[in-house]
Amino acid sequence: MAQATLDRKAQIHREACRLFRERGFHGTSVRDIAERVGMLGGSLYAHMESKEDLLAEIVDAAADRFFEVLEPIVRSDQTSLQELRAAIVAHVKVIAEDLDAAAVYTVEWRHLSPARREAVTRRRDDYERMFRGLVGGAMRDRLISTDDEATAALFILSALNYMFTWYRPDGRMTPEEIGRMMCDYILDGLRRRTA
Amino acid sequence: MAQATLDRKAQIHREACRLFRERGFHGTSVRDIAERVGMLGGSLYAHMESKEDLLAEIVDAAADRFFEVLEPIVRSDQTSLQELRAAIVAHVKVIAEDLDAAAVYTVEWRHLSPARREAVTRRRDDYERMFRGLVGGAMRDRLISTDDEATAALFILSALNYMFTWYRPDGRMTPEEIGRMMCDYILDGLRRRTA
Repeated sequence: MAQATLDRKAQIHREACRLFRERGFHGTSVRDIAERVGMLGGSLYAHMESKEDLLAEIVDAAADRFFEVLEPIVRSDQTSLQELRAAIVAHVKVIAEDLDAAAVYTVEWRHLSPARREAVTRRRDDYERMFRGLVGGAMRDRLISTDDEATAALFILSALNYMFTWYRPDGRMTPEEIGRMMCDYILDGLRRRTA
Repeated sequence: MAQATLDRKAQIHREACRLFRERGFHGTSVRDIAERVGMLGGSLYAHMESKEDLLAEIVDAAADRFFEVLEPIVRSDQTSLQELRAAIVAHVKVIAEDLDAAAVYTVEWRHLSPARREAVTRRRDDYERMFRGLVGGAMRDRLISTDDEATAALFILSALNYMFTWYRPDGRMTPEEIGRMMCDYILDGLRRRTA
């Protein structure tokens, strides 16, 4: 595709993603998206098949991004606990770098058709399984004390994912700082150690 | 109001809440709600002003429920750390007792009109402040080691709130057990203590 077409497509994605986050998938019309990118509704169809296709592409791209940063960490030569730390910080950064995408991936994906929803659920499960693997690795290395890696992984991902509701790019902490603080909270807990 | 009217109203709330969770606020029509409760769209208006009013009532009732369980804990005579533990378990139970309400309160509330959204945000902030107060109390008692009660409170509420995406009533753990496990994770962290 020509560069201009690719740029246009990226712009449509960005604006659609923002609108889906603000108004919800069903609250956003193709016309709303067209308006934001300064096109007529009809012309938008030269760049997309349907509103649902657009949602599917946004959701897939968001999932890709999470895998893209996690996979090299899982394959690295660090200790299990270092990998878990790196994965937590990386996950926080992916959320912070595109809050709209994180919100749509977390909330609006369920408006996809059943077959597509199932595919997203499978990828989500794969991702969760990689986190569970990191927790399991640290458990086997006796660096983590829980014996329930599934709930521990849900705990970690919950603490991180919900960030899309409160993170502000102009806040006092950088994504890296938030990521490291979350690491400390998750691994060491809030309670003062009396030992 | 007569009991039959109250029952009807409760049934409409329940079904509307379920639909808003499944299809989103904008993806649900008054007709969809009427169908679920076995009424005609027109007759439904005898029980409500508008679809948005229904959403507002559901969101307010959800907020009420969280306050209802937290307030007695905050006013109790327990130690700060016991209060924080009790608040975490209570919060988990409120989410588990009505997942539809928790999901709508977390996700769909943003489709309220700006004035109503602002009122919800204020109550949400009040609730968060109560949690921050619990963390702050435990900090002053030197039972908690963080010096950032705001981020610590966000960490706690994130770990708990996201539960609406993964909790299954037929799962292997009761809400009480999940609550206690979350407490342990939040307060003691996942890392094995070497001391």
